[in-house]
Amino acid sequence: MRTRAADMFGLEFPIFAFSHCRDVVAAVSRAGGMGVLGALYFTPEELETELAWIDANVDGKPYGVDVVMPASYEGAEFAPEELVGRLQGMIPDGHRKFVDDLLARHGVAESDGAAGRVLLGWTDATARPQVEVALKHPIALLANALGPPPADVVEMAHAKGVKVAALASTPRHAVKQVEVGVDVVVAQGTEAGGHTGEISTMVLIPQVVDAVDVPVLAAGGIGDGRQVAAGLALGAEGVWTGSIWLTVEEADTPAVARDKILAATSRDTVRSRSWTGKPARLLKNEWTDAWEAADSPGTLPMPLQFMLVSDALRRIGRSDAKELATFPAGQIIGTMNDVKPARQVVFDLVEGYIEAMDRLRAISDR
Amino acid sequence: MRTRAADMFGLEFPIFAFSHCRDVVAAVSRAGGMGVLGALYFTPEELETELAWIDANVDGKPYGVDVVMPASYEGAEFAPEELVGRLQGMIPDGHRKFVDDLLARHGVAESDGAAGRVLLGWTDATARPQVEVALKHPIALLANALGPPPADVVEMAHAKGVKVAALASTPRHAVKQVEVGVDVVVAQGTEAGGHTGEISTMVLIPQVVDAVDVPVLAAGGIGDGRQVAAGLALGAEGVWTGSIWLTVEEADTPAVARDKILAATSRDTVRSRSWTGKPARLLKNEWTDAWEAADSPGTLPMPLQFMLVSDALRRIGRSDAKELATFPAGQIIGTMNDVKPARQVVFDLVEGYIEAMDRLRAISDR
Repeated sequence: MRTRAADMFGLEFPIFAFSHCRDVVAAVSRAGGMGVLGALYFTPEELETELAWIDANVDGKPYGVDVVMPASYEGAEFAPEELVGRLQGMIPDGHRKFVDDLLARHGVAESDGAAGRVLLGWTDATARPQVEVALKHPIALLANALGPPPADVVEMAHAKGVKVAALASTPRHAVKQVEVGVDVVVAQGTEAGGHTGEISTMVLIPQVVDAVDVPVLAAGGIGDGRQVAAGLALGAEGVWTGSIWLTVEEADTPAVARDKILAATSRDTVRSRSWTGKPARLLKNEWTDAWEAADSPGTLPMPLQFMLVSDALRRIGRSDAKELATFPAGQIIGTMNDVKPARQVVFDLVEGYIEAMDRLRAISDR
Repeated sequence: MRTRAADMFGLEFPIFAFSHCRDVVAAVSRAGGMGVLGALYFTPEELETELAWIDANVDGKPYGVDVVMPASYEGAEFAPEELVGRLQGMIPDGHRKFVDDLLARHGVAESDGAAGRVLLGWTDATARPQVEVALKHPIALLANALGPPPADVVEMAHAKGVKVAALASTPRHAVKQVEVGVDVVVAQGTEAGGHTGEISTMVLIPQVVDAVDVPVLAAGGIGDGRQVAAGLALGAEGVWTGSIWLTVEEADTPAVARDKILAATSRDTVRSRSWTGKPARLLKNEWTDAWEAADSPGTLPMPLQFMLVSDALRRIGRSDAKELATFPAGQIIGTMNDVKPARQVVFDLVEGYIEAMDRLRAISDR
């Protein structure tokens, strides 16, 4: 499975695995693919710890870090030290009441005041320290999940010999990303989990491949070897996967979420703004339904929505209100029905790809 | 490109082309694929005329007919002769007023009273005469667009040596269809035009292929040879295409619609109930937006919605209110930027498929 994306990083298989779990990242890289750690939920100090662990456990194989620097968000004009306070003041009381009432109806305990981290890494001010930590480690790839990364961040990465990837959901996004120096475009279809656009992987990949000269990875709906082969058929030079790592043995996915994924069909997700304010594919349930209901106040723009709901999601996670527990998940969760080691998932993808290629050759040669 | 689906019909290429235009159907079949005429808009008498024309112009090549027999619809309990009257009585005045007001705001002329056909072929009572006409012709395939066809219709077709296909948007649908005797499942992803489900082609095809033993055709997002190769990589044994025939030279697509398609991006469609009451992917515009707006009365169930809007859509088509003119269209319209003969589109699909296979072999063999 030799492509420019494989050669760029010296990978055996151009299979990229996005995960918030360091164990998964290291396991995929050791198996010949490339693990990419999602930094969003970590403070710079925590990220340092995670990356040090990966360095010690990845056997020198390449791995990456994924940050979320949105091209646009509310409060970009505020100084970092006043950012949280100013943003908190922008959340309407009616929205807070809607969340409180929803949780009360489902018997979720009231807030203990420990609001926790509300901003995460999705402003320039909070993502930059993550980038600085990441670039002190021997990472091979820095990926940005929402739009083109700032040009100076691309330069910083390149100065350290680190390649830069960005997620695109339209060909126009991809062109902009390459203009600021991105080395790899992850073209992500609407079926993907987390932040996602409207265009399906099948339709999007050829458009992006035709729009840019750099290697493109196919993302969205990639869960078995047939989908790897399909992604390459569409012109991609590798695949970017996410949801399928939520149920591997190494994953630290909460049991509630893991069980829901194992039981879900591909119709059990929905594209919703109820998590971050930007459209993201989530497990569809009473939480996502509530934000679509007639009495919903509507969602707030990024990063206000997550600031509004972060404590609620934490309390739901600790409660018995499993019907409200949602999380980012792609349509591929409909085919995830068992728990395997990450290494095995990599090998199954490769084996399925080889079988698909044998079948394609037979169709073509007959 | 030899597969069971190709062998079943003796096709050079297992490329199926759905079109309401007889010229397109005949041209695709003559080029080595299989044209399938959408019967929905035709009376039995008109359908007879169209099929007689195809018989005289298809050079003996196989072609098919597509009908719409929904598994469920309002009014199924009424006798055919009272069906339209009873259904008309079920449409609320508020809905009629909403449509009248919308058209008035856009300067569309009032109704001339010539309401035209309001029921079309999407009840058992209206589709059955179409089936009877179709089976008097040497068709190779009878396809049903909404769920499993009635078992006796499958039997009638098989008794004439005609194969039966049905469109499925979940693996569960596909299993039900095969249980009533369907010979070919068209697994259609959410990116497809017209009536469509939620699951993307990339995710859906392998699930359907694993769920049934009959040949599966990949539908939704198929517009160039890379997508043909991807569909086969996913396990399909052919592709089912629709939107791409709207802009071929032979198509009788109205100029307004053709120009909109040529200019559209893949983000310019939306899954909407505003056409028939069941979710269908349409060109997104002020019509589809109006039904989602805060003052929308909501859509009615099939077939009431089309009965409500059919005269409005006809009047919009004749008016200058181009901003309201919508029609079924898949996300692939974003890549349809020129007008070619249908024969050339078939050959381009095949050539692109061969190129994709060459590329895949190179990736695999290196």
